[in-house]
Amino acid sequence: MSLIGKEIESFKAQAYNAGNGEFIEITDESLKGKWSVVCFYPADFTFVCPTELEDLQDQYATLQELGVEVYSVSTDTHFTHKAWHDHSEAISKIEYVMIGDPSQTISRNFDVLDEEAGLAQRGTFIIDPDGIVQAAEINADGIGRDASTLVGKVKAAQYVRNNPGEVCPAKWEEGSETLKPSLDLVGKI
Amino acid sequence: MSLIGKEIESFKAQAYNAGNGEFIEITDESLKGKWSVVCFYPADFTFVCPTELEDLQDQYATLQELGVEVYSVSTDTHFTHKAWHDHSEAISKIEYVMIGDPSQTISRNFDVLDEEAGLAQRGTFIIDPDGIVQAAEINADGIGRDASTLVGKVKAAQYVRNNPGEVCPAKWEEGSETLKPSLDLVGKI
Amino acid sequence: MSLIGKEIESFKAQAYNAGNGEFIEITDESLKGKWSVVCFYPADFTFVCPTELEDLQDQYATLQELGVEVYSVSTDTHFTHKAWHDHSEAISKIEYVMIGDPSQTISRNFDVLDEEAGLAQRGTFIIDPDGIVQAAEINADGIGRDASTLVGKVKAAQYVRNNPGEVCPAKWEEGSETLKPSLDLVGKI
Amino acid sequence: MSLIGKEIESFKAQAYNAGNGEFIEITDESLKGKWSVVCFYPADFTFVCPTELEDLQDQYATLQELGVEVYSVSTDTHFTHKAWHDHSEAISKIEYVMIGDPSQTISRNFDVLDEEAGLAQRGTFIIDPDGIVQAAEINADGIGRDASTLVGKVKAAQYVRNNPGEVCPAKWEEGSETLKPSLDLVGKI
Amino acid sequence: MSLIGKEIESFKAQAYNAGNGEFIEITDESLKGKWSVVCFYPADFTFVCPTELEDLQDQYATLQELGVEVYSVSTDTHFTHKAWHDHSEAISKIEYVMIGDPSQTISRNFDVLDEEAGLAQRGTFIIDPDGIVQAAEINADGIGRDASTLVGKVKAAQYVRNNPGEVCPAKWEEGSETLKPSLDLVGKI
Amino acid sequence: MSLIGKEIESFKAQAYNAGNGEFIEITDESLKGKWSVVCFYPADFTFVCPTELEDLQDQYATLQELGVEVYSVSTDTHFTHKAWHDHSEAISKIEYVMIGDPSQTISRNFDVLDEEAGLAQRGTFIIDPDGIVQAAEINADGIGRDASTLVGKVKAAQYVRNNPGEVCPAKWEEGSETLKPSLDLVGKI
Amino acid sequence: MSLIGKEIESFKAQAYNAGNGEFIEITDESLKGKWSVVCFYPADFTFVCPTELEDLQDQYATLQELGVEVYSVSTDTHFTHKAWHDHSEAISKIEYVMIGDPSQTISRNFDVLDEEAGLAQRGTFIIDPDGIVQAAEINADGIGRDASTLVGKVKAAQYVRNNPGEVCPAKWEEGSETLKPSLDLVGKI
Amino acid sequence: MSLIGKEIESFKAQAYNAGNGEFIEITDESLKGKWSVVCFYPADFTFVCPTELEDLQDQYATLQELGVEVYSVSTDTHFTHKAWHDHSEAISKIEYVMIGDPSQTISRNFDVLDEEAGLAQRGTFIIDPDGIVQAAEINADGIGRDASTLVGKVKAAQYVRNNPGEVCPAKWEEGSETLKPSLDLVGKI
Amino acid sequence: MSLIGKEIESFKAQAYNAGNGEFIEITDESLKGKWSVVCFYPADFTFVCPTELEDLQDQYATLQELGVEVYSVSTDTHFTHKAWHDHSEAISKIEYVMIGDPSQTISRNFDVLDEEAGLAQRGTFIIDPDGIVQAAEINADGIGRDASTLVGKVKAAQYVRNNPGEVCPAKWEEGSETLKPSLDLVGKI
Amino acid sequence: MSLIGKEIESFKAQAYNAGNGEFIEITDESLKGKWSVVCFYPADFTFVCPTELEDLQDQYATLQELGVEVYSVSTDTHFTHKAWHDHSEAISKIEYVMIGDPSQTISRNFDVLDEEAGLAQRGTFIIDPDGIVQAAEINADGIGRDASTLVGKVKAAQYVRNNPGEVCPAKWEEGSETLKPSLDLVGKI
Repeated sequence: MSLIGKEIESFKAQAYNAGNGEFIEITDESLKGKWSVVCFYPADFTFVCPTELEDLQDQYATLQELGVEVYSVSTDTHFTHKAWHDHSEAISKIEYVMIGDPSQTISRNFDVLDEEAGLAQRGTFIIDPDGIVQAAEINADGIGRDASTLVGKVKAAQYVRNNPGEVCPAKWEEGSETLKPSLDLVGKI
Repeated sequence: MSLIGKEIESFKAQAYNAGNGEFIEITDESLKGKWSVVCFYPADFTFVCPTELEDLQDQYATLQELGVEVYSVSTDTHFTHKAWHDHSEAISKIEYVMIGDPSQTISRNFDVLDEEAGLAQRGTFIIDPDGIVQAAEINADGIGRDASTLVGKVKAAQYVRNNPGEVCPAKWEEGSETLKPSLDLVGKI
Repeated sequence: MSLIGKEIESFKAQAYNAGNGEFIEITDESLKGKWSVVCFYPADFTFVCPTELEDLQDQYATLQELGVEVYSVSTDTHFTHKAWHDHSEAISKIEYVMIGDPSQTISRNFDVLDEEAGLAQRGTFIIDPDGIVQAAEINADGIGRDASTLVGKVKAAQYVRNNPGEVCPAKWEEGSETLKPSLDLVGKI
Repeated sequence: MSLIGKEIESFKAQAYNAGNGEFIEITDESLKGKWSVVCFYPADFTFVCPTELEDLQDQYATLQELGVEVYSVSTDTHFTHKAWHDHSEAISKIEYVMIGDPSQTISRNFDVLDEEAGLAQRGTFIIDPDGIVQAAEINADGIGRDASTLVGKVKAAQYVRNNPGEVCPAKWEEGSETLKPSLDLVGKI
Repeated sequence: MSLIGKEIESFKAQAYNAGNGEFIEITDESLKGKWSVVCFYPADFTFVCPTELEDLQDQYATLQELGVEVYSVSTDTHFTHKAWHDHSEAISKIEYVMIGDPSQTISRNFDVLDEEAGLAQRGTFIIDPDGIVQAAEINADGIGRDASTLVGKVKAAQYVRNNPGEVCPAKWEEGSETLKPSLDLVGKI
Repeated sequence: MSLIGKEIESFKAQAYNAGNGEFIEITDESLKGKWSVVCFYPADFTFVCPTELEDLQDQYATLQELGVEVYSVSTDTHFTHKAWHDHSEAISKIEYVMIGDPSQTISRNFDVLDEEAGLAQRGTFIIDPDGIVQAAEINADGIGRDASTLVGKVKAAQYVRNNPGEVCPAKWEEGSETLKPSLDLVGKI
Repeated sequence: MSLIGKEIESFKAQAYNAGNGEFIEITDESLKGKWSVVCFYPADFTFVCPTELEDLQDQYATLQELGVEVYSVSTDTHFTHKAWHDHSEAISKIEYVMIGDPSQTISRNFDVLDEEAGLAQRGTFIIDPDGIVQAAEINADGIGRDASTLVGKVKAAQYVRNNPGEVCPAKWEEGSETLKPSLDLVGKI
Repeated sequence: MSLIGKEIESFKAQAYNAGNGEFIEITDESLKGKWSVVCFYPADFTFVCPTELEDLQDQYATLQELGVEVYSVSTDTHFTHKAWHDHSEAISKIEYVMIGDPSQTISRNFDVLDEEAGLAQRGTFIIDPDGIVQAAEINADGIGRDASTLVGKVKAAQYVRNNPGEVCPAKWEEGSETLKPSLDLVGKI
Repeated sequence: MSLIGKEIESFKAQAYNAGNGEFIEITDESLKGKWSVVCFYPADFTFVCPTELEDLQDQYATLQELGVEVYSVSTDTHFTHKAWHDHSEAISKIEYVMIGDPSQTISRNFDVLDEEAGLAQRGTFIIDPDGIVQAAEINADGIGRDASTLVGKVKAAQYVRNNPGEVCPAKWEEGSETLKPSLDLVGKI
Repeated sequence: MSLIGKEIESFKAQAYNAGNGEFIEITDESLKGKWSVVCFYPADFTFVCPTELEDLQDQYATLQELGVEVYSVSTDTHFTHKAWHDHSEAISKIEYVMIGDPSQTISRNFDVLDEEAGLAQRGTFIIDPDGIVQAAEINADGIGRDASTLVGKVKAAQYVRNNPGEVCPAKWEEGSETLKPSLDLVGKI
């Protein structure tokens, strides 16, 4: 079984809070109590990564409004995260928390550690306020992610959480109809 | 490490080829030699599932043009798949191959089997012609998938395969610029 | 040693109550307190199965009068059971409970799971109110069962339970003589 | 998985051939090449047993005509079988082979050995000429079997063996129609 | 080390009390409190066995006078013991307890079970009132035992138990001299 | 299963040949090719032992005529055996081979070693020319054996060996009738 | 036993050749054939580290003249090494090879990996042309190393290698006397 | 991970206190409460060793002033240490404690035991008053150590201990500036 | 490590007290509280053994005066020991305790058991009043021991025990000087 | 079983040949081909040891004449042996080979290593030209050995080797009578 529906495992890490320029400690408990998006990428100072992180920043305000905190994670240290933020034009725009995972614990917890390379794969996870993983997306190296699809998934996950017993059909958008599972619907759609 | 970058494991299954109404046998070898999209869902005759499968059908022609074969998989039998196709308005439109996985082998291979329920989680996988998984997306129950994002990912994956040494940045779309990794780019983006 | 004389193992499953069209949860505890007939078959929407289940329905009233509840079980879901009931002329007559066993737990408990196919073998079990298996019959695929023999076995089993110390000889029918084991009978029959 | 569909395991035993009054050796190989009915019962000189064995004798001529050999088995010795045949009115009619299984090997092979008592449970097995078990029926102590149902099962099993691709529906009787599985039948019955 | 000097192990069995024609339960505890002779033989309704058991019956009165209970044991059932007693001229004279050991527990406890045949070897054991084995004799198949030697051994064993510190020399008979071990005797006989 | 019917295990030992006063080496192979009686006893220079060994000597001539070689065994050395023979009136009469077993190998092979004491129990074994144990008798300490019963057992064992298919009933004596097992005898005695 | 005197273990890593600004692959084989100094430090963009690496650069020319290649290693990537070199005044002076060890293989091989932190300890190793470690020095965090002592050690190690049978006493400096071990010196110094 | 940052393991040994010519017992506890330098060398009465130990003596007064106790260790006995001190001109100057480690426990604890030779490698360790190893240096045989570098390291280690939050850069000398880690320094040096 | 300095292990044995002609029980506890000499030899009634035991008897009075008890041990029984004492001129002089070790426990405890032969090797042990072995001497078969050397060793051992802190030099004899270990002596002898 | 009768195990060591002042390598093979005496002692520069080694030197000429080579062994190095020889009056007389065993291999091989102290116990071994241990003597610390007894043992061992079939009685001295084991002697001495 995949991570979907499971609670995130324990970790403790140092992070660079790009929003206020401070170093902070982040644990699995820090993610509880509100929605989170956790975005893994292989390494600072590389190619696809900054465009993905910049793209994620573009959705940051919208995600914040939805009550979602955003975390990026690589196996680099928080020192390197700060340095990258200081020196890269794209990365300097970032306002969310950049977690350093040199001990590889978080990457291993989310099953995205490439053991041979010591780097994380490009996985994005949506986690609910109970710490339960609700959605996962992982791409091979070389293929960038589109952060805009995250917003729709978060909205659907939040709708389902707030409206137990209803389900969001494919391509569901906020405001459109949901499905209320009932015996009559079985085999009727 | 996730399934990304790994070759699919061996399986053998009966399927309902909704395109021509025949029962056929599908193995892991059937997926080699062209691109594949494999779409898992929990069960026939349920709620979110038909809207997702219908949505996937809407992209089928486009995916076919890109040389991609589409497979849906649940732990139902191929008999049930045919019956669903016969009786459901939404499902009757489907033209791709519907694989029956009552032995749970394929669902277990792709790590999406909910052992307790005996049902597959909502996972979608893009597999290249070598049988290597290039992208994965899994959602919790109750949250539908949007098949249209598959097309973009397939295009990016195909571009990267056909143009070794280039990478697609976030939100890349066919025709837009890619990145050629070079030493000069390090720390410059 | 076979299952005969052993108590049924723990399970929990979703079922379609064909009698009133509702979905219900069934556990091993549901079977305690009255007599039960549990009838396994490979798959919905197949060939021999509907004739067997229809034949079992023909005996349902008689079995009900004997205080026996009837359950059919396949590794299909309860959703598929309802759909089959909705669409098949033969199955639509069924009034007993159709248990979905996609997790394969019940089929494995009764030792009738074909692991390779993920389907149940054609086993029928008579279970007494204490949950003890009293009779079992299993046929290879392709050979249908005759539900009418169940009635006689149930009557014999009930007679023996109600009249401890007496035994039903071969071909015993309700009302005919039983045997009271006594030292004098040893070697006399 | 039950014994159905599996080949019988190796054994060697002494038997009393009640047909001609001789002692013979029987092995698993003796059962190959023709159809067999193997009928286990707890013990010689007991109560239900003679009525069951007598009942089986009543079907012996019919089974012989169908090319079926009949074997009864208990954990008594072949000496005791002969003595029972010599002294019991009911048993003296028997003409088939009575196997002695004091080593408990055959009873264990067919999973009907009550280890604590050292006696066999009341199991009946139909075995095809390849030594594959085609049908099994086991009853609790105190409940007699009806040998007449064996004839119908043997005929159905023989029909299926001789007409590959056809299946016998429930309550099938010789001469009545069978089903030829075809795609069109799926969900149509 | 042999069984001599060891306490008998736990068992529970059904027996035919040939003395009064009743079925009784015998356990290892039944043997405690008085002297016992336990006589194993391969099978009822065979050749050497009845002459040995008859010979043992001839000594039964004498053994009873010595306070010894006699038990015969084979892996046949108590039902078969009764039948043998009913039908055999030699066996019908027996008045002692005939234990049925179809579960093979007692034969295994006394190390006389031929596992391959499932039958007991021809062993005779003298057990004291504490359940300690005092003498054992085992013969190959085909060689009968002489029960009369039992009486002498029992008397010697009883004498030694009643006169601690004295020993019976070879060929000792009741009333003849025993030896009182003393330092002076060492090397003097 | 007891030692009866099993071949003796390998050993090598020094012995005192009391017949000619020489030290010789004896192995398991020495016992093959003719009948043997092997008589274990606890220790030289003790109480019961000399009377038993003397008693065995009294039967030596008769046993020799039957082609039987006799061996006594204790865990004493062959040196001590010679010394005992030199100094004890009873033992000085002995003409058979006295085996020294200080390594305890033979006593352990015949399952008569009292590990705690390091001494052999009072076991007597009859071994046929193939090295197969045909009869065993073991008594508790304090109870002497009667060597005269050995002669009868040897004769019966030899008769059975020479007349395959016949068996000696209880109390059989040379010249008296044996039993030829036949089907007709079953249950007739 | 420490690493001294042992051959370095196998590894493969990406490195930033600060001398010419290129990315290169370095393996354990790259270190064979000439003398090497390998200098581990915790992380790029931190505090003590740049002063140590700068200090090492100050000795680089001298070490080069002695035929020694210099490698710095941290668990950062080669991308981060380049970025640090691009942006830090101290580090920009570096001309030797900066190895990225995100897979932690090299740090683990040299026993300086702090598993909990995922960072290397401050270890410096001198390795001879056969890949054998000749000297090691490790300091706790917070205590900087003095690269100048490396030169003296390398010279001593080279002298000993080139003059087998001579040894350098404490505080030995190039040109000063060495010791030739001889029997006469034993106990004389 | 190396020994740096770990507490020393338990040991008990006899030593020669060269300062006052007495034999004393030294344990791991003796090293707690003040700073220690522990200097391993292969063997008494050999070549490089006396020059190193003499060199260490030259720093002894300075180290004492810094509150550091000095211990030399080889696998020789304390008897041999005294004899060497008595007879060698170089060694006779020594005033610190010479520990005998014939049981090899201490050498094994510090991972400097050459198991094959049974001799210690040339390791020097600085241990803080909590028994935590702060610095280690090990050289191959044939290469002498320079004790003067110890003084600088001890001073740096003491400064860091006394001024938590400050770090000593490379080549730091007493009185010169230290670094106070702050966010602003990241990537600025 | 040899037995020297270890406490003797637990045992219980029967012995012949040659001094008063009685049989007694000896345990490891019997040896505590006074000095003991334990002398193993292969077997009674053999060649070298009596001369050694006689030689030991010649020292018995002297050893008794020193408060030493003497025990001889072989794997023979105490019965055989008495017989040997009765019949051998040399052995009849013995007045000490002759332990029988047929269970081989003591011989195994003192590591002198030849497992293949089941006999003890020629070992002599001096044990102090605390049950601690102080001296051991073992010779190959064929080489006799000289008991007179025992007296000297016992005296030296007693002197050391009574004068803690003094040691007996080689060839020390009662009354001659001992050595008081002091620092001054180190390297002075 | 003790070492007596076993071949010495493999070792390799450095030694000080006190006879000519050279360092040599000694292996187990060096001891083959002639008689050897190997004398273990705890440590150089201690108390009892020099008197024992001096005493051994006093017998060296005699032992040499008998073709015996002498070796002393302690866990000190050969360097320390030379130093002791240089500085001790007693030891300076030594002409035999002093083996250094700092790896403790030889001491462990001869079972005289005190693991806790890392020192050898006071064991002396006589080894024949085949490398078989013929005699062993071990004393507790504090008790010196008397080398003169070695000469007698060596002569006896050599006599037995040269005159197979004869044995030396206790206190045997060269020229005195030996015993020829014969049957007549058993129990006669």
